[in-house]
Amino acid sequence: MKIILASQSPRRRELLELLGLPFEVKVSDTEEIMTSTDPGEVTKELSCQKAEAAAETIEEGVVIGADTVVSLEGKILGKPENREEARKMIHEIQGKSHNVYTGVTVIEKRAGKECSRNIFSEKTTVKVASMSEEEIEAYISLPEPYDKAGGYGIQGSFAKYVEGMEGDYFNVVGLPVHRLYDVIKHLSDK
Amino acid sequence: MKIILASQSPRRRELLELLGLPFEVKVSDTEEIMTSTDPGEVTKELSCQKAEAAAETIEEGVVIGADTVVSLEGKILGKPENREEARKMIHEIQGKSHNVYTGVTVIEKRAGKECSRNIFSEKTTVKVASMSEEEIEAYISLPEPYDKAGGYGIQGSFAKYVEGMEGDYFNVVGLPVHRLYDVIKHLSDK
Repeated sequence: MKIILASQSPRRRELLELLGLPFEVKVSDTEEIMTSTDPGEVTKELSCQKAEAAAETIEEGVVIGADTVVSLEGKILGKPENREEARKMIHEIQGKSHNVYTGVTVIEKRAGKECSRNIFSEKTTVKVASMSEEEIEAYISLPEPYDKAGGYGIQGSFAKYVEGMEGDYFNVVGLPVHRLYDVIKHLSDK
Repeated sequence: MKIILASQSPRRRELLELLGLPFEVKVSDTEEIMTSTDPGEVTKELSCQKAEAAAETIEEGVVIGADTVVSLEGKILGKPENREEARKMIHEIQGKSHNVYTGVTVIEKRAGKECSRNIFSEKTTVKVASMSEEEIEAYISLPEPYDKAGGYGIQGSFAKYVEGMEGDYFNVVGLPVHRLYDVIKHLSDK
């Protein structure tokens, strides 16, 4: 069964490679529509819209859509659009814990028909160390924060500010590798 | 101040690069002597022996030694030497949680004299999913398990079997990046 990743994130591509299964990347334009304010539900909705858009273009295969958000004290943090927003986000997350949610939708199609759909969201709690003004300024002057939810990349220069976590590390990078593997394994069992 | 990593592990090299500080790798032969059976103490002792051996060869600089072990139900798991040992280790760790300890020693030398020494050990708890015989056989047929404590590489093909963790992810890969950064930062404050 052909696997299609409906995401252009190079990090998700690397994580999916860990499963050792061949796949293609196919991204279709979608309008992002959120009807919930709950971070887990939001990531499920957005992952579903991405997967559906890619699934429409194929006859056969397994499509994976994913969406990651950072949630701090009930507020969703997206990607910072400029230096000022990045500064504000890092200020907010430093010195405390926040939650990272990745929602995943796996749609299986055979002979043009959808035959299964799995949607889930995985939460990981990340504890960030206290940072000085100099450390924040040095970090936001890198290109790293600007294409990432919450304004940081755990697998890059931000690693030194991460005291610890509870949950799946790979979920923070962009895909809950273990749960996704489990879903895909059971599809092929059928 | 020159930084020296007293470890030949390519994974530790990559992790130290995350700190963004230039460093060299210098490995000196040491006899590994353990006087404790406590996994945290063992990693501190071994990291110290590695750091001391490299520190003896320099006049100036900061030397980092590190050692990682996997501890399961009070027993220390080293690197599997053959397929049979790898099979046994993966059988033992699957379906439950274990602890990974990385001990770190940082020795600072100026004008031929040691002027500071920091030794610590960091623990991360890793929860491994239940694995089938087929999954275990497929995993131990890869080269991945054989140069790693506990017989697995969390950042490689084993990622899909890791349900979650509590603590510093990078500590499992081989260096507690945040705590090491904290120690080095305070050295340069002086």
